[in-house]
Amino acid sequence: MTMSPEPSGTVPDTAIYDRRESAVRSYARSMPRQFGRAEGVWMHDDQGGRYLDFLSGCSTLNYGHNHPILKQALLDYISADGIAHGLDLHTGAKQGFLTAFEDLILTPRGLDYRAMFTGPTGTNAVEAAIKLARKITGRELVIAFTNGFHGMTLGALACTGNAAKRGGAGVPLSHVAHEPYDGYYGPDVDTADLLEQRLADPSSGLDAPAAILVETVQGEGGLNAASPEWLRRIADIAKSHGALLIVDDIQAGCGRTGGFFSFEAMGFIPDIVTLAKSLSGMGLPFALTLLRPELDQWSPGEHNGTFRGNNHAFVTATAALRHFWSTEEFHRDIERRSQLLESRLLRIAAEHGFEARGRGMMRGINLGSGELAATVTAACFDAGLIIETSGAHDEVIKVLAPLVIDDAVLGIGLDILETKIREAAENNYAVAAE
Amino acid sequence: MTMSPEPSGTVPDTAIYDRRESAVRSYARSMPRQFGRAEGVWMHDDQGGRYLDFLSGCSTLNYGHNHPILKQALLDYISADGIAHGLDLHTGAKQGFLTAFEDLILTPRGLDYRAMFTGPTGTNAVEAAIKLARKITGRELVIAFTNGFHGMTLGALACTGNAAKRGGAGVPLSHVAHEPYDGYYGPDVDTADLLEQRLADPSSGLDAPAAILVETVQGEGGLNAASPEWLRRIADIAKSHGALLIVDDIQAGCGRTGGFFSFEAMGFIPDIVTLAKSLSGMGLPFALTLLRPELDQWSPGEHNGTFRGNNHAFVTATAALRHFWSTEEFHRDIERRSQLLESRLLRIAAEHGFEARGRGMMRGINLGSGELAATVTAACFDAGLIIETSGAHDEVIKVLAPLVIDDAVLGIGLDILETKIREAAENNYAVAAE
Amino acid sequence: MTMSPEPSGTVPDTAIYDRRESAVRSYARSMPRQFGRAEGVWMHDDQGGRYLDFLSGCSTLNYGHNHPILKQALLDYISADGIAHGLDLHTGAKQGFLTAFEDLILTPRGLDYRAMFTGPTGTNAVEAAIKLARKITGRELVIAFTNGFHGMTLGALACTGNAAKRGGAGVPLSHVAHEPYDGYYGPDVDTADLLEQRLADPSSGLDAPAAILVETVQGEGGLNAASPEWLRRIADIAKSHGALLIVDDIQAGCGRTGGFFSFEAMGFIPDIVTLAKSLSGMGLPFALTLLRPELDQWSPGEHNGTFRGNNHAFVTATAALRHFWSTEEFHRDIERRSQLLESRLLRIAAEHGFEARGRGMMRGINLGSGELAATVTAACFDAGLIIETSGAHDEVIKVLAPLVIDDAVLGIGLDILETKIREAAENNYAVAAE
Amino acid sequence: MTMSPEPSGTVPDTAIYDRRESAVRSYARSMPRQFGRAEGVWMHDDQGGRYLDFLSGCSTLNYGHNHPILKQALLDYISADGIAHGLDLHTGAKQGFLTAFEDLILTPRGLDYRAMFTGPTGTNAVEAAIKLARKITGRELVIAFTNGFHGMTLGALACTGNAAKRGGAGVPLSHVAHEPYDGYYGPDVDTADLLEQRLADPSSGLDAPAAILVETVQGEGGLNAASPEWLRRIADIAKSHGALLIVDDIQAGCGRTGGFFSFEAMGFIPDIVTLAKSLSGMGLPFALTLLRPELDQWSPGEHNGTFRGNNHAFVTATAALRHFWSTEEFHRDIERRSQLLESRLLRIAAEHGFEARGRGMMRGINLGSGELAATVTAACFDAGLIIETSGAHDEVIKVLAPLVIDDAVLGIGLDILETKIREAAENNYAVAAE
Repeated sequence: MTMSPEPSGTVPDTAIYDRRESAVRSYARSMPRQFGRAEGVWMHDDQGGRYLDFLSGCSTLNYGHNHPILKQALLDYISADGIAHGLDLHTGAKQGFLTAFEDLILTPRGLDYRAMFTGPTGTNAVEAAIKLARKITGRELVIAFTNGFHGMTLGALACTGNAAKRGGAGVPLSHVAHEPYDGYYGPDVDTADLLEQRLADPSSGLDAPAAILVETVQGEGGLNAASPEWLRRIADIAKSHGALLIVDDIQAGCGRTGGFFSFEAMGFIPDIVTLAKSLSGMGLPFALTLLRPELDQWSPGEHNGTFRGNNHAFVTATAALRHFWSTEEFHRDIERRSQLLESRLLRIAAEHGFEARGRGMMRGINLGSGELAATVTAACFDAGLIIETSGAHDEVIKVLAPLVIDDAVLGIGLDILETKIREAAENNYAVAAE
Repeated sequence: MTMSPEPSGTVPDTAIYDRRESAVRSYARSMPRQFGRAEGVWMHDDQGGRYLDFLSGCSTLNYGHNHPILKQALLDYISADGIAHGLDLHTGAKQGFLTAFEDLILTPRGLDYRAMFTGPTGTNAVEAAIKLARKITGRELVIAFTNGFHGMTLGALACTGNAAKRGGAGVPLSHVAHEPYDGYYGPDVDTADLLEQRLADPSSGLDAPAAILVETVQGEGGLNAASPEWLRRIADIAKSHGALLIVDDIQAGCGRTGGFFSFEAMGFIPDIVTLAKSLSGMGLPFALTLLRPELDQWSPGEHNGTFRGNNHAFVTATAALRHFWSTEEFHRDIERRSQLLESRLLRIAAEHGFEARGRGMMRGINLGSGELAATVTAACFDAGLIIETSGAHDEVIKVLAPLVIDDAVLGIGLDILETKIREAAENNYAVAAE
Repeated sequence: MTMSPEPSGTVPDTAIYDRRESAVRSYARSMPRQFGRAEGVWMHDDQGGRYLDFLSGCSTLNYGHNHPILKQALLDYISADGIAHGLDLHTGAKQGFLTAFEDLILTPRGLDYRAMFTGPTGTNAVEAAIKLARKITGRELVIAFTNGFHGMTLGALACTGNAAKRGGAGVPLSHVAHEPYDGYYGPDVDTADLLEQRLADPSSGLDAPAAILVETVQGEGGLNAASPEWLRRIADIAKSHGALLIVDDIQAGCGRTGGFFSFEAMGFIPDIVTLAKSLSGMGLPFALTLLRPELDQWSPGEHNGTFRGNNHAFVTATAALRHFWSTEEFHRDIERRSQLLESRLLRIAAEHGFEARGRGMMRGINLGSGELAATVTAACFDAGLIIETSGAHDEVIKVLAPLVIDDAVLGIGLDILETKIREAAENNYAVAAE
Repeated sequence: MTMSPEPSGTVPDTAIYDRRESAVRSYARSMPRQFGRAEGVWMHDDQGGRYLDFLSGCSTLNYGHNHPILKQALLDYISADGIAHGLDLHTGAKQGFLTAFEDLILTPRGLDYRAMFTGPTGTNAVEAAIKLARKITGRELVIAFTNGFHGMTLGALACTGNAAKRGGAGVPLSHVAHEPYDGYYGPDVDTADLLEQRLADPSSGLDAPAAILVETVQGEGGLNAASPEWLRRIADIAKSHGALLIVDDIQAGCGRTGGFFSFEAMGFIPDIVTLAKSLSGMGLPFALTLLRPELDQWSPGEHNGTFRGNNHAFVTATAALRHFWSTEEFHRDIERRSQLLESRLLRIAAEHGFEARGRGMMRGINLGSGELAATVTAACFDAGLIIETSGAHDEVIKVLAPLVIDDAVLGIGLDILETKIREAAENNYAVAAE
């Protein structure tokens, strides 16, 4: 196996982008290639370069690019003039998805949810979740957490912690309080205790919340993984204070941290769950808000949208559920790869005094410096590895390889990462020593 | 040609929907069939019924269902492992779209815009537009209009007029004022004058606006069509008061009212334009915010999202642009069909004293009563015609046939509509006379 | 009678003000004297100047400065160690006020209100009123009017129309919509119709209101007087849409427009009334929110404050009620002076093509230009007449003489005003003619 | 000396209150007497009862009721027809106050502030302070603290922690975050560290603040006294993050905690200070916002109000400054009485395992139970001692005796308190033991 990106001096003609695409584009800046074809863990640029994808569309491509089974299902559906767009009408594609989701996901896990097909973006699923929580409780405040990331539309953006994203709102972001996530104040402070104290205190200034909105692992926030104990505490606190617990499983769900849901086997059941990213399995826009049936108090059309219920995505999602989640095999594969990944990252981190973070196949290394991390990811890209950063200062390199990656290929990617971290770290020491 | 829906007593097994789909679903209630296949203007249910589609996914399917050219382009792309999901990386598919959009849409119309690929929903495009306007002006207030509809996420929902939708927010909707649309207070009151007076008055309580957000024809609001004169006034008012003019062309654009943009040849150029619905041409999730280049003051990633830049949609959108918008033929077809539609609707309206409304292929009849309109659309559905209502009281029957509809088929659908309106109106009179 | 202000070149030592008083001070700039003593309609500066007061503390001194009966009552109370500050405890002074208010104001007018002693500022009375309306209705929106003025604290400021005042908030002002006041769009547009249409339309974007907050005559907004018919319509609209009607009678009440309440004999009864300014009768801080008894759903202390219930003000207010409102004489005096004032203002206005405005003893002349009005008021001041402007552009000269002013003295003040308007107008014409 | 309240069975005729005063009244419920006369530390009811005042109008009467020197100054001023109400015109009374404030308060302490005379309520002074901070910084967020109390108008109420007060708003309270006060999470957690960490973290969700608003001792919040070290840290944090430091000294200032300002000698200087309550010295409505001169960026009239600049209050405040603050004697008296108070409270607290709290003459005992505290204060009232509670659960009995109280009389009041606490505690044990 070889990876052969073009020499870094050769860039495609990007005049059309400069002329016609908004300056808001971001990834295209650090990966200045034009891509065309992709399959499995590989992306190909237009100049013959091949890249190993350790970004996976920020966990949108857990089953890799254009998985052949999903791809074939979609080709068959389109060829047969299957309905592409049907608003929220009943379609065979939707029936297929709901049936598979019930049979393969809900029933085996003893979960009882209803599916709300929101506009096909994660932010829309979050908006629907917090709307519903506010409607049901008659309260306005949503408690979110430091470093949380939940989307860019106004309601979800208010729940997002990142200052640069928040600043884009142009209006003050209201009706949300950010409380410290697990471990935020270090290992000696139990932040669930702090939250409990404030909610129990009628003079704390923290209003009674409609919902507590939490990620079990914060992807954009720096791969902070909350402990199951802390999450159970948060679930208990929500319940005892009359708030709904919303787990935003958009990045951590669909197998990324092991199970289909990131909170499986943790001893609590959220009231509402949001899913998106890898749900379609092939990277198609698709989002879902799951509700406990007794919370399904929506009026018809109360939250609607043109693209709710993407039938192409129903088809690929159904194929993905049937292929990957009918047996325990995929889950076991993820577990094995997670351990491989964890041990490699721990070793790399230990070598340089860095910190390994995360859970399952959602892990990374905190380099302590956004500048250093950017150096590493740029070097990786030059070496044919697509990998990105997250965290408040973009200081955490995150490994979001497709879950279906071959163990050996995973190892090759990690070799590149290890080498580039070592080079950057040594160069850093050398500079510091001068 | 025959239409043969199943007898209305036969309904599919909808137990899975009752069990697993949220009560928020709406269209499935008035059209209780399960659909499978669709091509052109026809939708097919699972029981052999065929329906003429006068809804077109609320103007999302202007080129009909599964147009063969678009379909083939997509099949080819998928078969070749074209990238489905690439965040906002440069891809050949994106390059193709931007180039076609520049060549076939912008340049011929003398327009200079940059494209911002937002999350693939109309509401997200609107959120991006108003964020940007607020950022650039340093002001918070957005002026929207009575009966306007702009989406369901918190920022866009605040711009939406409908009380039932607004009530779903669960928090007060702020930073938006709704001013009267063209004709809102009847033909004798020029609402542009009213707006001008309030903005010119430093004691009116109407804060200086960041943007004026307007639809040229209000689709969900009841097919109210603003006059070009009024729209020019609004454009002038925006300019003179330091506000950006945002045209929400999500429903009225992409040929629905004649030109690619609904505001073509009206004598003003918006600062920002939002597009979605029919942009992909095949009903795939896709949204776009167009900005004048000097307004493109976004920081990289300041408004981001997982599914911004849907490559499948790039492919079909490019095919649609190249097929339909390379020559004047499609435009001429729309014009001809619009006149046919207009004359039929005027005749029907005149017969019963109702009011015809709209512009281009975005027209309807105000029956003055939501109950009556519901009776008519239900009867149409039973006769094999899918058609829906809009307006504050759902009192306006809207004809949103695919723009590619054969003139004769358009006539057949209108025959059904005419008959069902007559029957309902006569029954109404009879009841009233008793 | 002579008025003898100091030559305008002689100004007091204002170094302490420049050094220690905030730049927010305003009246001291246009009237650069230091005042010491005042009685009745006269104010005296420290340099022997005497001024006729046509401002009356913006209608706070309806009974003139230091009215001897009120003054003696207060001296007696203080001499006897009457409680000055008693939080909201029962005091003899409060009992006296409540009894007089019931006997002389409420009972004769057939009104049934409870008195809420808020913090002793008008803005606080307004805040209490809108809080209560929101609490009772469970709605957030307050409808206020163009050119309305209701105070400077955040809740009341949101109801105020003036852009310069609003801009001071530093945060967007929310939960209030400003609708056009009576006559705002000229004589041909009935703005009550416009409001009715918008509230009746579920798609207008105007949320269901908690309250409609209105001044019967807009003092700060330019002496716009709503017609009784329009006010009755507004009262009906409030009732039919489940909103409370709040009359802000802070400036127009206490006899300024004739009766004790400005809305007397107009055929409607507000749900809530706010009073302040002239309520104490001697210019002492005092404010009151009157509620229909069935609306008195406050919890104890739910809206509190240190200075609610100013006992000195109870004493002077009681003396004022007993002296002025026990018989019809004062009311008749106001009526007579109002007619005198009206006829003089109409004559002055007619001479120059200006517009006379207002009602009762709350009248003025719209000069159409803030610059011209400032020239006139400055010239009046130099001639010994204290008079000020209001309106969106400070273009309306307002005559707010004490209600107790002797008819002859009123005439003398109006003579000065007439002369200074004539001089300024002629000078204006002369300049324009050059 | 004897105290002789009427037998508790004799209550005044309160029919007028039931009929005409709003249910919002609070103190009158726990002290069901009608009061008439008061001097020094004594209040007299209409039935001959005499009460020792350990409430002092919640620290509004630091110099006692109707202090003879203040009273005489006011009588002289009124008798001479001194201007009672002059809007914000220069008056001799204002000049006198500003001069005394400069000479006796600012200059000796090396402080350079400008005085903004806001509406005469504490809440108005706070509103002005946060408006200015938002205007100057261009930011919206104000950081306030758990258990903080800052007023009832919408802007100040958002800064107040108490849930019952907040609930009265009827709209969500925005643009304020409540952070933990000194000691909130117990002695082992330095809450200044927590705040510092959150502000330094660009992904914490805590927006950059316009101001940090803090009380040095939280009066209503339960007599929590922040340490000087913590307050210095907060001052440093404000400075380093570009926020203004606002000390709300409305209750703790004017000598209550020792110096004229509560923050004297603590090693930091606030950017803005609010004063009210005891500022007039005689309980008259009066409020003041002090600004560093470079922050005095108000436009004329940008924050105005009818009663800003209460001339009666200027007169009594000036007399109070000259009488009490010209020498060190008063300060020394307060120090001595504070020690007496502290030692007595420590002894009482120690006897029952309760906790003594506070600083200077602003101290109390936390009984751990609102019910127990209410029993004690009711028993005190029956014994002729007016005393109240504060804290999240009204569990802290607060001793707010006039600062001028004779040491022996202070002792007598504390004897009553000690006895009633002992009786209630013993009764509690007895009940618990049954």
